[in-house]
Amino acid sequence: MQNRVLTGEVVNKVGETVLICGWIERVRSHGKIAFFDIRDRGGVLQVVAATPETVVSTEALSVQSVVKITGTVKERAERYVNPNIPLGKVEIELTQPVEIISKAEEMPFDMGGTELNLQLPTLLDFRALSLRHQQIAPIFKVQETVIDAFRKALKARDFTEFQAPVIIPQTAEGGSEVFEVKYFEHKAYLAQSPQFYKQILVGVFERVFAVNKTLRAEPSVTTRHLTEVTTLDAEFGFINSWEDVMEMAQYTITEILKAVEDQQKDVLDLYKTTIPKVGNPIPRVKLREAQEIIAQRTGKPISNEPDLSPEDEKEICKWATDEKNSDLVFVTHYPVSKRPFYTFEDPEDPGYTLSFDLIGRGTEWLTGGQRINDYEKLVTAAKGRGIDLEKSELYLQAFRYGMPPEGGFSFGSERIVMHILGLANVREASLFPRDMERIDERLSILAQKK
Amino acid sequence: MQNRVLTGEVVNKVGETVLICGWIERVRSHGKIAFFDIRDRGGVLQVVAATPETVVSTEALSVQSVVKITGTVKERAERYVNPNIPLGKVEIELTQPVEIISKAEEMPFDMGGTELNLQLPTLLDFRALSLRHQQIAPIFKVQETVIDAFRKALKARDFTEFQAPVIIPQTAEGGSEVFEVKYFEHKAYLAQSPQFYKQILVGVFERVFAVNKTLRAEPSVTTRHLTEVTTLDAEFGFINSWEDVMEMAQYTITEILKAVEDQQKDVLDLYKTTIPKVGNPIPRVKLREAQEIIAQRTGKPISNEPDLSPEDEKEICKWATDEKNSDLVFVTHYPVSKRPFYTFEDPEDPGYTLSFDLIGRGTEWLTGGQRINDYEKLVTAAKGRGIDLEKSELYLQAFRYGMPPEGGFSFGSERIVMHILGLANVREASLFPRDMERIDERLSILAQKK
Repeated sequence: MQNRVLTGEVVNKVGETVLICGWIERVRSHGKIAFFDIRDRGGVLQVVAATPETVVSTEALSVQSVVKITGTVKERAERYVNPNIPLGKVEIELTQPVEIISKAEEMPFDMGGTELNLQLPTLLDFRALSLRHQQIAPIFKVQETVIDAFRKALKARDFTEFQAPVIIPQTAEGGSEVFEVKYFEHKAYLAQSPQFYKQILVGVFERVFAVNKTLRAEPSVTTRHLTEVTTLDAEFGFINSWEDVMEMAQYTITEILKAVEDQQKDVLDLYKTTIPKVGNPIPRVKLREAQEIIAQRTGKPISNEPDLSPEDEKEICKWATDEKNSDLVFVTHYPVSKRPFYTFEDPEDPGYTLSFDLIGRGTEWLTGGQRINDYEKLVTAAKGRGIDLEKSELYLQAFRYGMPPEGGFSFGSERIVMHILGLANVREASLFPRDMERIDERLSILAQKK
Repeated sequence: MQNRVLTGEVVNKVGETVLICGWIERVRSHGKIAFFDIRDRGGVLQVVAATPETVVSTEALSVQSVVKITGTVKERAERYVNPNIPLGKVEIELTQPVEIISKAEEMPFDMGGTELNLQLPTLLDFRALSLRHQQIAPIFKVQETVIDAFRKALKARDFTEFQAPVIIPQTAEGGSEVFEVKYFEHKAYLAQSPQFYKQILVGVFERVFAVNKTLRAEPSVTTRHLTEVTTLDAEFGFINSWEDVMEMAQYTITEILKAVEDQQKDVLDLYKTTIPKVGNPIPRVKLREAQEIIAQRTGKPISNEPDLSPEDEKEICKWATDEKNSDLVFVTHYPVSKRPFYTFEDPEDPGYTLSFDLIGRGTEWLTGGQRINDYEKLVTAAKGRGIDLEKSELYLQAFRYGMPPEGGFSFGSERIVMHILGLANVREASLFPRDMERIDERLSILAQKK
């Protein structure tokens, strides 16, 4: 809009008459005086109507309507200053009636409070509306920062960003939870990860990363699983050892957390949280050591499971916080059988892999490791798992024609945001979450509409 | 690798002994002296073997093998300087035999020349290998720059980046060329564009953009179509008119081209091309005006088609170059029937839309326009096309609860790269192109392997 000023700019315009456009957040009338909040991309600002005609125009407003207002910027009297919001020291006094650009229908729930206390199904049924709430929208500014910081960190280390495909020819990694696509007269599948492609591209650019849409036919409804995830993947060659991969993962996570702390401090405050402490280096324990530590701390017998249980993950995090002053911990050396076929076996610890999970705040944040770069070993490893790599010719090519020692890591942007902000459900960290039961709307409701 | 130096760094290390790791590019033996090129992420560098044992180790090398070399950096004698390559003034003289890290099998074609003269099917059948070629890999550095510049340009204008979903519930835009996914017990579809989601998010962030994977069941095999594309989408609210959208598109394309010129000059040179001239402003003609201009210039009768033919697109580009000193031109006011239902009709030119295509070098680069932001009008427009918007409840919500005047634009990163570099086929601009006949391998071959 011509001559439009953003709410965030008014602090420098006290005494001036300005034109502001945005959405109505809350309306309060006290008879001769009325108030509303207006939201635009610059923030939320209080507006005062103090003349009969501006009060009338204010009382007629419906929440979420889009309006254009003209008024004078004023400093609030000291007793009216709201220290909890960035624009709490100023307000606009209307000089003209409010002009409605797009009138909103009546709200299905209260959008006006600082907290949006909705059950998850309602929050998602009304996603186009609930996303506008000042408690919800900032979650996705944090996601944006996480993804941006990921890119920036790896670009600084000479990585090339690439675009990984979504449609793949085979379920070559052997996973069963894969979506099938009708591809003309053929069957195709949706990528569960860009793993093969990022490895192929180590042969081209040495160091690559990608921001991907990955799709997994997750058949259970949990608080941690989505069918569609934005994953952040990195892979690089000419490593001296798998420790280089852990170091790169540590560097990347550290840069991401720093960026969130620097750029999203207000969101951290809103969610009453802080970024986790990151040890330098992040402590590293083998799975079996972790199981011993957990047994010692809890008094329970040592677990012989090939993985950590959710309780184990919480306990090893507590240990890292208590003993190593780090809220993040690397658990390494998962058994060969528990990791994908391309995972590098530790020659000094046969049966166990040079792989790691980064665990923080009680759950897995990131997973990575060194890969098999020798063609013959790779084919043997695949065969040993009953995987027919002949169906993934491009992947094989990359190793047949020269591949350095390499490794990489991967993590979901939604999970990281969930963990940083302490959200109860990963769905809250996805703009438009998809699960077994829902794609935007509940599938049962959509089916009825057909 | 420990103490590893990148090829790009050796120019400052003349006289020093360095360790370099990379891929073998070409080997030439002249008996007592032998040469090879080594490639790493820093560039390509000539290596000389001048002692019996280093010559023997060089002669044993297979192209694309991964090696580790140790040698002394030397300035080349003046007559051996190669001005055509960045590292043409220096070379490495081996002080130790070459150490092989990963031996490549024999090449299926010559990878050693500066040009890779392969038919497209072979280029793609051996994509993991052909991507490594110095003529092919840089295409994707240009794609990276295009995408990066897109993000940077819009961030500078206060846009928020978001992650659009790939799996969607309905084919609500009414397109037939949509992929169907088996989604548990339901049917779902793959997104052909993030259109609905970016419009929804105008209600949340005002200004948004996304880098998307979009999927289209394109049933024809042409040089311009892929089934999977990385599209760049922007959408923003509070426009004064649709001209704001054209201005934003012009700004974005200008920034992208500038970035390619600044950062990828060597690739432009390699492809013997330059970025197109961009008028300021880019000339704008209504479709009907364009058809008149074309008729005048060609002497053919005025076309009454609702769109430009490929020949028309070439001719209007020539006109823009000749008459307006711009290789890009906006063609506007396509008929309502030729644009999606949400396109805004021009109140001053009924039957025609406030929409535009940006045309350059003979083909469409980008498409955009103003959208209907009024809820009732949107529903009426959808019904008029037989589109059941009831099945897209979130989309409707966004308009039911307050939406400012808004618009946006979209373009494919592969097409832009194709046009900038003058590639003959869009498949060359996709790392792993998908079409009716191919997902990595040819589908007919994959089917046989099953």
